[in-house]
Amino acid sequence: MRRLGYALAGVAMAGAAQAAEPPLDAKASDPVAMGWMVGSPPPPERTVRFDDGSYLTFPQTRWTFSHWRELFPTTLVARGAGPVSALPRAERGDLDAVTFTPLGGAAPMTWGQSLAANYTDGILVMHRGKVVYERYFGALKPEGTHIAHSVTKSFVGTLAAMLVAEGKLGPDALVTRYIPELAGSAFGDATVRQVLDMTTGLEYSEVYTDPKSPAWDFVRAVGLLPRPPGYSGPTTSYDYLKTLRKAGEHGQAFSYKSVNTEVAGWLVQRAAGKPLAQQLSERFWAPLGMEQDAYLQVDAVGSGYAAGGLNLALRDLARFCEMMRQEGRSNGRQVVPAAVVAEIAGGARREDFAKAGYATLPGWSYHDQWWVSHNDHGAYMARGVNGQACYVDPKAEMSIVRFASHPQASNVYLDPLSLPAYHALAQHLMRTP
Amino acid sequence: MRRLGYALAGVAMAGAAQAAEPPLDAKASDPVAMGWMVGSPPPPERTVRFDDGSYLTFPQTRWTFSHWRELFPTTLVARGAGPVSALPRAERGDLDAVTFTPLGGAAPMTWGQSLAANYTDGILVMHRGKVVYERYFGALKPEGTHIAHSVTKSFVGTLAAMLVAEGKLGPDALVTRYIPELAGSAFGDATVRQVLDMTTGLEYSEVYTDPKSPAWDFVRAVGLLPRPPGYSGPTTSYDYLKTLRKAGEHGQAFSYKSVNTEVAGWLVQRAAGKPLAQQLSERFWAPLGMEQDAYLQVDAVGSGYAAGGLNLALRDLARFCEMMRQEGRSNGRQVVPAAVVAEIAGGARREDFAKAGYATLPGWSYHDQWWVSHNDHGAYMARGVNGQACYVDPKAEMSIVRFASHPQASNVYLDPLSLPAYHALAQHLMRTP
Repeated sequence: MRRLGYALAGVAMAGAAQAAEPPLDAKASDPVAMGWMVGSPPPPERTVRFDDGSYLTFPQTRWTFSHWRELFPTTLVARGAGPVSALPRAERGDLDAVTFTPLGGAAPMTWGQSLAANYTDGILVMHRGKVVYERYFGALKPEGTHIAHSVTKSFVGTLAAMLVAEGKLGPDALVTRYIPELAGSAFGDATVRQVLDMTTGLEYSEVYTDPKSPAWDFVRAVGLLPRPPGYSGPTTSYDYLKTLRKAGEHGQAFSYKSVNTEVAGWLVQRAAGKPLAQQLSERFWAPLGMEQDAYLQVDAVGSGYAAGGLNLALRDLARFCEMMRQEGRSNGRQVVPAAVVAEIAGGARREDFAKAGYATLPGWSYHDQWWVSHNDHGAYMARGVNGQACYVDPKAEMSIVRFASHPQASNVYLDPLSLPAYHALAQHLMRTP
Repeated sequence: MRRLGYALAGVAMAGAAQAAEPPLDAKASDPVAMGWMVGSPPPPERTVRFDDGSYLTFPQTRWTFSHWRELFPTTLVARGAGPVSALPRAERGDLDAVTFTPLGGAAPMTWGQSLAANYTDGILVMHRGKVVYERYFGALKPEGTHIAHSVTKSFVGTLAAMLVAEGKLGPDALVTRYIPELAGSAFGDATVRQVLDMTTGLEYSEVYTDPKSPAWDFVRAVGLLPRPPGYSGPTTSYDYLKTLRKAGEHGQAFSYKSVNTEVAGWLVQRAAGKPLAQQLSERFWAPLGMEQDAYLQVDAVGSGYAAGGLNLALRDLARFCEMMRQEGRSNGRQVVPAAVVAEIAGGARREDFAKAGYATLPGWSYHDQWWVSHNDHGAYMARGVNGQACYVDPKAEMSIVRFASHPQASNVYLDPLSLPAYHALAQHLMRTP
């Protein structure tokens, strides 16, 4: 269990590196060059396993994030038999040289330099509906898939917002209207809106650097972590959610707690009467003409891990993100109602968000499981630990999607080299269309 | 652990039902009508789980076999981005009435009646390159996938035979030439041919009705069974194989032991230097224009479960089976060398096979992980527990593929209503082309 202990206290999903030495850089940690999982069997020192926790340890994570299904039970998110939608290309060579100043005042850097600095596995930029930039690194290939981590949440939030627009989910209703089982829990007096915007007051913290953080109990229940011998805790997401207790009041402040998304996923399933994976397939994968099937990690009773279990191709994340950028349209089809996209992009109360104290996100808000910048471009994002991102810039007619395997979980460590880079790219594309 | 105990002693993978009462029939056990895994969460009495063993208990298996990836780690067998190959259709309504006499002398029965009697989940008949019959039942749909169980072995055996034809694998070489790690095991003095034809002498039995059968230790090592608290045995296929001891002599008699296929899978990986799933993709899924991605269950170090872990669409099994029927050709392309198909279809020594005492397979042999009938049609088969089948009848220009979830594991229980039905259908198609 030593390696697991290291992983738990370690860098993969942790907020801050524990190791005294800095982690290997992107080149030194290249998972193909390191040769993870090559051979039959791979040599022990190049093997990535679930049961010893090595899958969550950096630099193994650089392999893991592109091979999630090989470690966990998953369910299919089917693209169906329809045609693949075109992704028109107009690649340009000038973007690597675009310069930006990192948050915090470090020396200026180019877009091209930022990719390795952020341990990028894949990045794709769409401008006016065309692919202007696309790169793959590490273990990811165009035909491969990558764990989206909490970018999954924005897919779930979009499903929820669509169900709200259809009158199947009442934003002001109590959660218990749809999930009576949560009556005795912290969610007993919470509304759907509070869950979707993560303004619930919960006795729960999501601090991956603290081995005693309830977040570990949560992911252990879902099956994302090995369970110790004699484990007698909850073995499903549903059972874990029922154990949560309230702290403070609901509706007062944004506080990022993934368990809200698990409740949102439950709500979406109850409101539509279908499993999450089926909804993702019918609402997004089929109508968007995705080029790859996606898949969703499931718990012990087959429930999709709404807070972070989606795995998909980078180009398909681009199709989704670009659809949002085009106010819900894709290839002449209204996939998500424009009013739903506007609702999401409008964000929530910035004063609620400010209480969470995100240094890299001043003036932002969180709404329907999306991060909204409220900047002068109207940009908003889906964000996942270790650098997963879908960035929509309506004014610049640009969207950016990125998969990464940064040694640090928290995007606080990636934002300084990402947010200003995205904005600089947007301004550059507006100047030189 | 009570339910697991039941599963272990039970009917799903067992050779004989333990229950005093007969199992539910196909209609009463219909997994859709029973409502397995419907709801969020599904009701406890309609939940199928890995950790309590219910996934291996009949009638839950009628759901499980079409949802394998939701219970286990798996790896992709990619079809790639190429076009789907056409499956021309010429369906005919006269086949349901074809009559045959079951082995053992029971009253004559029609083809149509045999399907429910065999707990068929899906069945497809090709004649002269066209689909003449296709039906789905239970939890399987044309766009779904189903566990192939030991039909997987014939895919692995075909890969091995191709590598032999290419000179990359020597049939008369010792296994240890490719896998020195097995020097101290039962396989230390076995040849590749003995492994491929399952004529090794092993201190191992595959009797699923015996809870102490080594077969349970094997599947526990692979990860197919929950491990008891404090389990300290092998956790990978590779490590389990090293523990096997010899009994008797190699090369004297056929004895069906799945561990041979695990060695064959290891050999195929060593000889080609690629994971099994990648070879299945490159050799079969891409060139055959399969319509769905397939997937392979993996163990704790990501190794594909060669003895029984392939999941695929019924129509894709038909493409593979029909390619074999057409001497390795498919859509004008030689996917498998004709000489390899001839080698497989020629079978092995029938006297070696006879020693295994299969009452329903008189005069058959086992070669390159295929079951060869040596009948006057030159028929041969891939066979998996609970009724999985690919039946090739060269003389009748017919192939049949079937997925099933029969309560009995051993095909001895399905053969009486299958083998004569297949032959009767072949004769009917020859008479009335």
